Amino acid sequence: MKRIVLALGGNALGDNLHEQMVAVKTAAIAIADLIEDGLEVVITHGNGPQVGMINLAMETAAKVDESLFYIPMSVCVAMSQGYIGYDIQNALREELLSREIDKPVATIVTQTLVDANDPAFDNPSKPIGAFYDETEAEAMTKRGYNMKEDAGRGWRRVVASPKPIGIVESCTVRALLEAGQIPVTVGGGGIPVRKKGGKGLKGASAVVDKDFASAKLAEELEADMLVILTAVEKVALNYGKSDQKLLTEMSSEEAECYIKEGHFAPGSMLPKVEAALSFVKSGPGRKALITMLEKARDGLAGKTGTVIYG
Amino acid sequence: MKRIVLALGGNALGDNLHEQMVAVKTAAIAIADLIEDGLEVVITHGNGPQVGMINLAMETAAKVDESLFYIPMSVCVAMSQGYIGYDIQNALREELLSREIDKPVATIVTQTLVDANDPAFDNPSKPIGAFYDETEAEAMTKRGYNMKEDAGRGWRRVVASPKPIGIVESCTVRALLEAGQIPVTVGGGGIPVRKKGGKGLKGASAVVDKDFASAKLAEELEADMLVILTAVEKVALNYGKSDQKLLTEMSSEEAECYIKEGHFAPGSMLPKVEAALSFVKSGPGRKALITMLEKARDGLAGKTGTVIYG
Repeated sequence: MKRIVLALGGNALGDNLHEQMVAVKTAAIAIADLIEDGLEVVITHGNGPQVGMINLAMETAAKVDESLFYIPMSVCVAMSQGYIGYDIQNALREELLSREIDKPVATIVTQTLVDANDPAFDNPSKPIGAFYDETEAEAMTKRGYNMKEDAGRGWRRVVASPKPIGIVESCTVRALLEAGQIPVTVGGGGIPVRKKGGKGLKGASAVVDKDFASAKLAEELEADMLVILTAVEKVALNYGKSDQKLLTEMSSEEAECYIKEGHFAPGSMLPKVEAALSFVKSGPGRKALITMLEKARDGLAGKTGTVIYG
Repeated sequence: MKRIVLALGGNALGDNLHEQMVAVKTAAIAIADLIEDGLEVVITHGNGPQVGMINLAMETAAKVDESLFYIPMSVCVAMSQGYIGYDIQNALREELLSREIDKPVATIVTQTLVDANDPAFDNPSKPIGAFYDETEAEAMTKRGYNMKEDAGRGWRRVVASPKPIGIVESCTVRALLEAGQIPVTVGGGGIPVRKKGGKGLKGASAVVDKDFASAKLAEELEADMLVILTAVEKVALNYGKSDQKLLTEMSSEEAECYIKEGHFAPGSMLPKVEAALSFVKSGPGRKALITMLEKARDGLAGKTGTVIYG
């Protein structure tokens, strides 16, 4: 059976609680199609709006009582995994049962190991949470946060976005796959943890890119394919320009060349192509597919999307 | 191998983020002892202070922006499972590795099925979250919350505490046990869900008692023993009185008799004894043990605690 890691994009989840409940139903249909086609599926997902909401609620509440609501980013990510995982497992379970497919779906609270020496920690740049004025920002800096002015809109907390070097619970994901179950995992890129003394791990003030975490997981699971779902059907060269060219496939050499030529936008298509590349290059025969949720089935049948190969 | 469901009490988790990090380390040592003794362990836990904190943060933030932070209790429970599970799995993983035991520990986001016709829904009585004045309480009632005056201290939201009738993800827990892994599950009694039309489930405005949920899980897993950890070493008759009598064991008939005689306090020892009873009576040879965390190993060795048998 073909093993795929399916990384859901933000549009599969929406921006708030109500949107999420609607969006996961659509996502569940697309995912159930793949399961019905006989694929072994692992589901991963982002958490941008959700972890932003949780972090903002905690920061708002902390203004009233700091001692109770000072919640690190790693814990906010853990909470978002519970929140999003619950909705995904519930929606997919219902969709599968309506097709008389009795396969358990379950979310695993997942930690992603990062290197404490990752250069990303020297230059935290990923903005999270609310905007603050300069006085508030100064107070937060004193409490140990990294604050950055954001294009005239105010000050925001920034965290590092280090590369994942391991998925702590990948053995659990594998055990569920081997039992014929459908795991939901590395939500929001996983809870970022780094090694401390001994065998322990501790939460890192960071956010791991969910596509890189999914690529690392796919590598550890020896998956056949990493499928990155996003808002567009195919990767494009000269995106949005008159000479835009949609790609059906690209070799890893071609992809690296296109990256150097600046075809893919940082914070958008670039990390997706880079994540795809990191998986493709991790072992022979491994492929990645970038397409949109609604086209996942067609993409896996070779009819659309952009395939990246070794 | 003897299969046990270990229900951690509130003192294994503490009342806030810092206390929890310290408390889970102590709990991890006690749990690792049992695993080292060759027991097959499933970990369950409460979430009172944690889900209270999350709910309160959301309510506080909702005063600023209601559209974004209106988060149902079921979702708050899901978030608390991520938060607490992360800490437990992390601490236990570290403790096991320090003993050179390489057994994966993972938290499963878990839903508990309740009956929409459970009489508890007609009389919501479990207080959660913050205190409000009468005007605020009236506004919340209009938004669909059940509000109750709490002993002159103000108004609080109350939710139902229905009995669990099934653990939705118990097949996943079983698969992990069969793979030699240690699941953390039914956190806070599980995310309460009830059947809707078709095969679907929807969140219920409720909180399930964690000991009852643990008993239901133990039943579905055909566990040998349900271990309910609490603040006392043994169950007592005439608790706190001069003629207090500590119990080493009680049959289910004796337990029912003591319940009728009013020996166990509602909201305290009563639900624990009732949960123990429900498991013991679910199948032949099933036993329950009530003791404190630090005495779990001795209790399982028959040296202390109170054993309830069929």
